[in-house]
Amino acid sequence: VPHLLVIGGSDAGIAGALAARHHDPSWDVTVALADRYPNFSICGLPFYLSGETPNWRDLAHRSAADLTEAGLHLALETTAVDLDPPNRHVTVAQDGRCHELVYDEVLVATGAKPVRPPLPGIDLDGVHTMHTMADAFAVHERLRDARHVVIVGAGYIGCELADAFTRRHLDVSVIEALPEVLSTVDNDLGRHVRDELTGHGVRVLVDTAVTGIRSRERRLHVSTGSGLDVAADLVIVAVGVSPNTAFGRRGGLATGGRGAFVVDRRMATGIPHVWAAGDCVETWLPLPGRAGYLPLGTTAHKQGRVAGTNAVGGDRLFAGSLGTQVVQVLNVAVARTGLRDSEASTAGYHPRTIEVTVDDHKAYYPGATPMVLRVTGDIDTGRLLGAQVVGHRTAQVAKRIDIFATALQSALTVDAVSDLDLSYTPPYSSPWDPVQTAAQTWLSAAG
Amino acid sequence: VPHLLVIGGSDAGIAGALAARHHDPSWDVTVALADRYPNFSICGLPFYLSGETPNWRDLAHRSAADLTEAGLHLALETTAVDLDPPNRHVTVAQDGRCHELVYDEVLVATGAKPVRPPLPGIDLDGVHTMHTMADAFAVHERLRDARHVVIVGAGYIGCELADAFTRRHLDVSVIEALPEVLSTVDNDLGRHVRDELTGHGVRVLVDTAVTGIRSRERRLHVSTGSGLDVAADLVIVAVGVSPNTAFGRRGGLATGGRGAFVVDRRMATGIPHVWAAGDCVETWLPLPGRAGYLPLGTTAHKQGRVAGTNAVGGDRLFAGSLGTQVVQVLNVAVARTGLRDSEASTAGYHPRTIEVTVDDHKAYYPGATPMVLRVTGDIDTGRLLGAQVVGHRTAQVAKRIDIFATALQSALTVDAVSDLDLSYTPPYSSPWDPVQTAAQTWLSAAG
Repeated sequence: VPHLLVIGGSDAGIAGALAARHHDPSWDVTVALADRYPNFSICGLPFYLSGETPNWRDLAHRSAADLTEAGLHLALETTAVDLDPPNRHVTVAQDGRCHELVYDEVLVATGAKPVRPPLPGIDLDGVHTMHTMADAFAVHERLRDARHVVIVGAGYIGCELADAFTRRHLDVSVIEALPEVLSTVDNDLGRHVRDELTGHGVRVLVDTAVTGIRSRERRLHVSTGSGLDVAADLVIVAVGVSPNTAFGRRGGLATGGRGAFVVDRRMATGIPHVWAAGDCVETWLPLPGRAGYLPLGTTAHKQGRVAGTNAVGGDRLFAGSLGTQVVQVLNVAVARTGLRDSEASTAGYHPRTIEVTVDDHKAYYPGATPMVLRVTGDIDTGRLLGAQVVGHRTAQVAKRIDIFATALQSALTVDAVSDLDLSYTPPYSSPWDPVQTAAQTWLSAAG
Repeated sequence: VPHLLVIGGSDAGIAGALAARHHDPSWDVTVALADRYPNFSICGLPFYLSGETPNWRDLAHRSAADLTEAGLHLALETTAVDLDPPNRHVTVAQDGRCHELVYDEVLVATGAKPVRPPLPGIDLDGVHTMHTMADAFAVHERLRDARHVVIVGAGYIGCELADAFTRRHLDVSVIEALPEVLSTVDNDLGRHVRDELTGHGVRVLVDTAVTGIRSRERRLHVSTGSGLDVAADLVIVAVGVSPNTAFGRRGGLATGGRGAFVVDRRMATGIPHVWAAGDCVETWLPLPGRAGYLPLGTTAHKQGRVAGTNAVGGDRLFAGSLGTQVVQVLNVAVARTGLRDSEASTAGYHPRTIEVTVDDHKAYYPGATPMVLRVTGDIDTGRLLGAQVVGHRTAQVAKRIDIFATALQSALTVDAVSDLDLSYTPPYSSPWDPVQTAAQTWLSAAG
């Protein structure tokens, strides 16, 4: 029986394993993972910590029983140590002993690890990162006695955790080195999220570098480049992730930008019988037309599915990532897809970006809220290049960015977006959806 | 100064007038309308009647002052009587007198009128249709003393009015001749709406023909083919609309299906200098690849914009309608786009339709609700042909159908829908959006 070995039990690994079984059930599929939490939703950790998802077991996309029933063999608490492609085996450590697992095909889905900046005090007790179930359990335990929390970094995780701790009525400070929170969107849009956080009592310091953390009188003290000393019972460092590649590099896998594995659109690594997918690989980005490091759960699922299918004899191409993403912070939703103005310029386009503020649905129907949309298009060709949307959590922001994402996937012009036949009823939209109003504003600016 | 005359002050007429001024402000633009309510949202009438929009003036998309400021001349309470293309003039009745308005170009946007079935008693006092502000005012007045309402017809308007009157704590009966409510979606999906209505105390009789209405002891009595006699203080007949074409036909405009005007994709009628748009015309339907009568507000806006632009020298093509539509009935949203299975067969495709029920977002995040999606695709080509979605009003049903609509506009395959880069965060979706899960279910059924 041919054997697929999957290294990693998160999004890409499980998606790959399931896709392999789906494509050809004659394959034997084993998933080896370092912890005991296969197929857990890392994106759900903030909701466990907020109390919105009180039972951590609910964070599993599928239970171990579901996965076994789907025909997967799970090797829990099994750390991959070495990859030996010429002999097609992997050395793993389990129960304090090393042994070898042979494979016909192997999928490297080792994911990412949180960046730990070389900060004085980063290793102190009470300073945490947030990437695994173990991280979540440790913070959950710590929260019992915590009143003051400092979050270093105001990206998605930082903002979601600020939301989570605010819901728990903790005193929360967020410190971000960049000029604005959520640097994945334009600063003017990130500003709406910052206002939402401060409006709920979160102290947000932007343009502020953390210079070190000290422990004093049983509390942590975070010092900043601006000379502040912020006391905390708990510090979370959330300044991004980097690909987790030590294992694969031992097998000779080539690395590219940010140290992530280089793969083709079949998720092949170039080393025979070795595939890779998810947060440990570079992702094909069709809009700039190059690969880049853009770790996202959605992408990991898609790449895993492609890799798993191809590993057992199928033939799928990864369609690429537009960088579509959304986050909810308290009552605000922020989303983006495609390129922002500066990114479009860098990629060689000739972009124009407009902004409109428009109600999410007819103002006469209760509950309408203003949403802000930015549309970026190419002046030379009229082609849509990207969009950003900020609005209330009830404003269907996520699915509106998806309309743009779908249009981008087909390389529509901004004019064609204005012509889309979108649905309308007063509780949900206007006869021209905000997506179309934004497109028309872009066209009017084009003169 | 060249002069555009627009006959009709609802969606298509106003959109046309504004588009003309936008395209070439040197044109003089007059909008003649039969009542005194230009640019009112007919789709909003149910919310005025429910009390959700207490002030009827809020139903105006734009005020008369806004329209005047945009450069439009408004001729209120001006009924178009005769169209004389050879002499380029229109006879109108105003203040009990007829006079002539000359034009260089004329846009016929006379809309639709409610179907009045030849039912005994249809003209009795207390029997109303619902299409104009005057209809809404009359019903609003009648509701003061009404306790029992019978709605004949369970299409969009009928269901929305049942919702509205339920919110007003009235006793509501809906009588529908067809086997299920909301015949615009498959019966199994309409069933969810019927359950929602009956769950809120509405009496819904399907497969039940109304045979007549009588007045007795100061009440109305609606009799059915099944022998029932349903008493009411108010009866609303909502069995659809037909194009309002008497005026245009006097000018020689050709009519097609359902008696609507035949136009090309520039919204030209074939009669020189005469354009037509909105609920009085046949609409280009790219998926079956033919014109048909499908009156929708979104389409009226788009066609009006195309007609107005072209009338003053521009050059736009109407992109066509996929029939994308959504309605909210109490806590349920129902939407569709493209072709249903039977429609696809009739249009010559070789369709397969699947249904999935999936949570609108990760179940571990509070508020997840099951939504039902149906996807229709062509077996021979893999092309997406249509979709239907039913879910809770919070489930982003409207914008999810819009993702399908955007995919349809680009003639994507179902497989490509599965590959879309859609946004994800647990409060709004899953790593594979329900749209993609539905697509993948279709692909699995394809084997």
